[in-house]
Amino acid sequence: MNAPTQAAHLAPEVAQRAVPEALIEALKARFGVNCSTALVVREQHGRDESAFTTVPPPAAVVFAESTQDVSDAVRLCAQFQVPVIPFGVGSSLEGHLLAVQGGVSIDLMRMNKVLSINPEDLLVVVQPGVTRKQLNEEIKSTGLFFPIDPGADATIGGMSATRASGTNAVRYGTMRENVLALEVVTASGEVIRTGTRAKKSSAGYDLTRLMVGSEGTLGVMTEITVKLYPLPEAISAAICSFPSIEAAVRAVIKTIQLGVPIARVELIDHNAVRMVNAYAKLGLREEPLLLMEFHGSPAGVKEQAETVQDIASEFGGNAFEWATTPEERTRLWTARHNAYFAALQSRPGCRAISTDTCVPISRLADCLLDSIAETDASGIPYFLVGHVGDGNFHFGYLIDPNNPQECATAEALNQQLVHRALRLGGTCTGEHGIGLHKMDFLRTETGEGAVDMMRTIKRALDPHNIMNPGKIFSM
Amino acid sequence: MNAPTQAAHLAPEVAQRAVPEALIEALKARFGVNCSTALVVREQHGRDESAFTTVPPPAAVVFAESTQDVSDAVRLCAQFQVPVIPFGVGSSLEGHLLAVQGGVSIDLMRMNKVLSINPEDLLVVVQPGVTRKQLNEEIKSTGLFFPIDPGADATIGGMSATRASGTNAVRYGTMRENVLALEVVTASGEVIRTGTRAKKSSAGYDLTRLMVGSEGTLGVMTEITVKLYPLPEAISAAICSFPSIEAAVRAVIKTIQLGVPIARVELIDHNAVRMVNAYAKLGLREEPLLLMEFHGSPAGVKEQAETVQDIASEFGGNAFEWATTPEERTRLWTARHNAYFAALQSRPGCRAISTDTCVPISRLADCLLDSIAETDASGIPYFLVGHVGDGNFHFGYLIDPNNPQECATAEALNQQLVHRALRLGGTCTGEHGIGLHKMDFLRTETGEGAVDMMRTIKRALDPHNIMNPGKIFSM
Repeated sequence: MNAPTQAAHLAPEVAQRAVPEALIEALKARFGVNCSTALVVREQHGRDESAFTTVPPPAAVVFAESTQDVSDAVRLCAQFQVPVIPFGVGSSLEGHLLAVQGGVSIDLMRMNKVLSINPEDLLVVVQPGVTRKQLNEEIKSTGLFFPIDPGADATIGGMSATRASGTNAVRYGTMRENVLALEVVTASGEVIRTGTRAKKSSAGYDLTRLMVGSEGTLGVMTEITVKLYPLPEAISAAICSFPSIEAAVRAVIKTIQLGVPIARVELIDHNAVRMVNAYAKLGLREEPLLLMEFHGSPAGVKEQAETVQDIASEFGGNAFEWATTPEERTRLWTARHNAYFAALQSRPGCRAISTDTCVPISRLADCLLDSIAETDASGIPYFLVGHVGDGNFHFGYLIDPNNPQECATAEALNQQLVHRALRLGGTCTGEHGIGLHKMDFLRTETGEGAVDMMRTIKRALDPHNIMNPGKIFSM
Repeated sequence: MNAPTQAAHLAPEVAQRAVPEALIEALKARFGVNCSTALVVREQHGRDESAFTTVPPPAAVVFAESTQDVSDAVRLCAQFQVPVIPFGVGSSLEGHLLAVQGGVSIDLMRMNKVLSINPEDLLVVVQPGVTRKQLNEEIKSTGLFFPIDPGADATIGGMSATRASGTNAVRYGTMRENVLALEVVTASGEVIRTGTRAKKSSAGYDLTRLMVGSEGTLGVMTEITVKLYPLPEAISAAICSFPSIEAAVRAVIKTIQLGVPIARVELIDHNAVRMVNAYAKLGLREEPLLLMEFHGSPAGVKEQAETVQDIASEFGGNAFEWATTPEERTRLWTARHNAYFAALQSRPGCRAISTDTCVPISRLADCLLDSIAETDASGIPYFLVGHVGDGNFHFGYLIDPNNPQECATAEALNQQLVHRALRLGGTCTGEHGIGLHKMDFLRTETGEGAVDMMRTIKRALDPHNIMNPGKIFSM
């Protein structure tokens, strides 16, 4: 994910496909000012939060305002066999949004309406450009909430495309479990629907879940039906420090294995605590912390919390601190939410390279401890945060992007970490997706056979390889 | 699903494909006595629990004992472009197991090993022929259980292939949520793996969920990793009668909307109660009943139960009866489990035609009440049971299979019911699958575009259409 290695990763894909002037003219004729070829607009749509920076921007950007717009834009691009890259807020960490083969970016941020709220069925239908915070704002009066919370205020479209999750996934699942139905514009510009509003169905292939996590390579999502949940009657948050990462992780493992329906359980290592203390003057003990949240009835929350407090004590946890008011909770979660920015400030000018492995929880301690030892030995500054209830965690390697040695070291650490996670039965990506950087990892993880099956599906549904080409696998 | 109409449904598929003698010889050479062409064996593998009976049996049955066996059998069939039909216990209700285009049945019941139990990660790896009861028996000592419980003691392979669920789905989800990873033999006989042991992943297309529910049309599952759950510390069951179906359903809707984590909530209509009373002398009030189960800590279960009891009272529920010992619970659940057999006994010689619609819970009362009125008016005896917490319910039309008028009436009722459910945003099948009978319904439900996408995927992954052809959609 760093500068020196990206060239190697991108090499097979870098061949830019021609974008004929006739297509640009056709798009301008159809979309008027909603099709831009201004360099500044194209450059905004030619990057994301990944470390890839050397890819030329798309040839044009279409600002879609409706499903019909998306369909027409895709149809025109299909006619000229030109790549189409769906674009939301641009928070991808894996290069999903880069026009690695050239093409046209379709900006979906004007498709940002909540189309229907159905509190009785605990679901909502949104356009892809609605962000998660906007959604929660718009449904506030219903007493329901949408729990999936990747770090960024990402769009529901982007989150669906990468099968995103976040801190609440341990209790509420990921986008895999929470997208119920879709409207999709296919590679030919056709509009199809997958799924219904029914909670379950055995009606044919699960096209919804095939699309979720397909990173824009099979179609553009134009309507998304997601599940909502009743706001818990009671919420209680707690923070607890541990003598070691191992002790913290063992406490989490036991909590999960006992079936405690904990809503959030986040690990913050001593480096991250030190960084957020410096950033936000939080005065937290500079030891590994677990940040936890319990949702339920008042009695249920109390019971869960007592159980977890007992488990924590068993593993040497101390300074168990409670937060039951919204303000206290906000203060505690600030530590977690600020970790990334606090880390960047801890080393001015640095770039954070984020890993995303996820392992079976029984192997979490092994995986973490070996990787921490390796990272400590490398001398690269880092922090570690994790959705440890799911076995998912992120090292943030804080590298000087102009120092090739550091870049190479971070890349080597990530390689070692991923291979360790795969050996332990895990995955190279818990929630960020494959994008450009993890294509080799995917092959190692799932085997050539499964990747070939993905390619076969891609070839069948997108014969001219125009939908976000060059992502997930090479063709 | 009845005799007179099945011919019409089957007509386009009935063309039997030739099974060359050379293939049978090759299978016998490879499998010896594990390949049978005895008529009695073929006939056992030429039917299931559906109403379709006029299809010729497969030309041969291979009893597979390993993934290699399945791979070799599929490779040989592929060489001759002969259909392959995976077979478990034969409990499909939709004709999934019938050799509508001829071919070879692969019996997977000898692949019935639990391959590894991993209690720490709450998962287990099984071969496809393991049944759900066998699985729960084999993991009993771990303190964990596998919650998915279709009526029959189906195999995990069959349940995965139809995306099955059952009474616990309201709390624990369906096979969609509970299959974590697969080993699959593809249409060319290749063995691929999908998914890992990690709880979540964003690694490429979700092939696991593409396979789950694909009814054997994309490959044969040879290893299945499923989630387990800690046996609840406390379980409490209750039965409550209501003055009307509507009152019972409204109580369920409110329970779900309040987010009560009820583990099971089953509706049994007054007809079904009457039938099980006659069958098993249960002495239940012959009114619509809700059967409920609560899982959790002792305090949590008590709290849930109190909440639901309050809701039930609000809707006129009475005779709330508790069962906390395993014996009492078994007695109550007997009513539900015996409903099907009790119904068959209520009209000697009859056949039960089961519907399987599922609607958004807000529309459940509307859907049920209109359909009940219609069914009452038809004069066909019936019973109604349902996983109403999910909006899924089954009418059982008790028809005389030799009476064409009754068959036609039942078919017409089912048609009306499905179209009503679709109008209300639901699905034609909550858990039984499409199979042979619901292909038209699928097209209406999801639209030609989505069915075409399914066909395109099928064609790409199985170019000679040998994997359980003629199911889900016509090609």
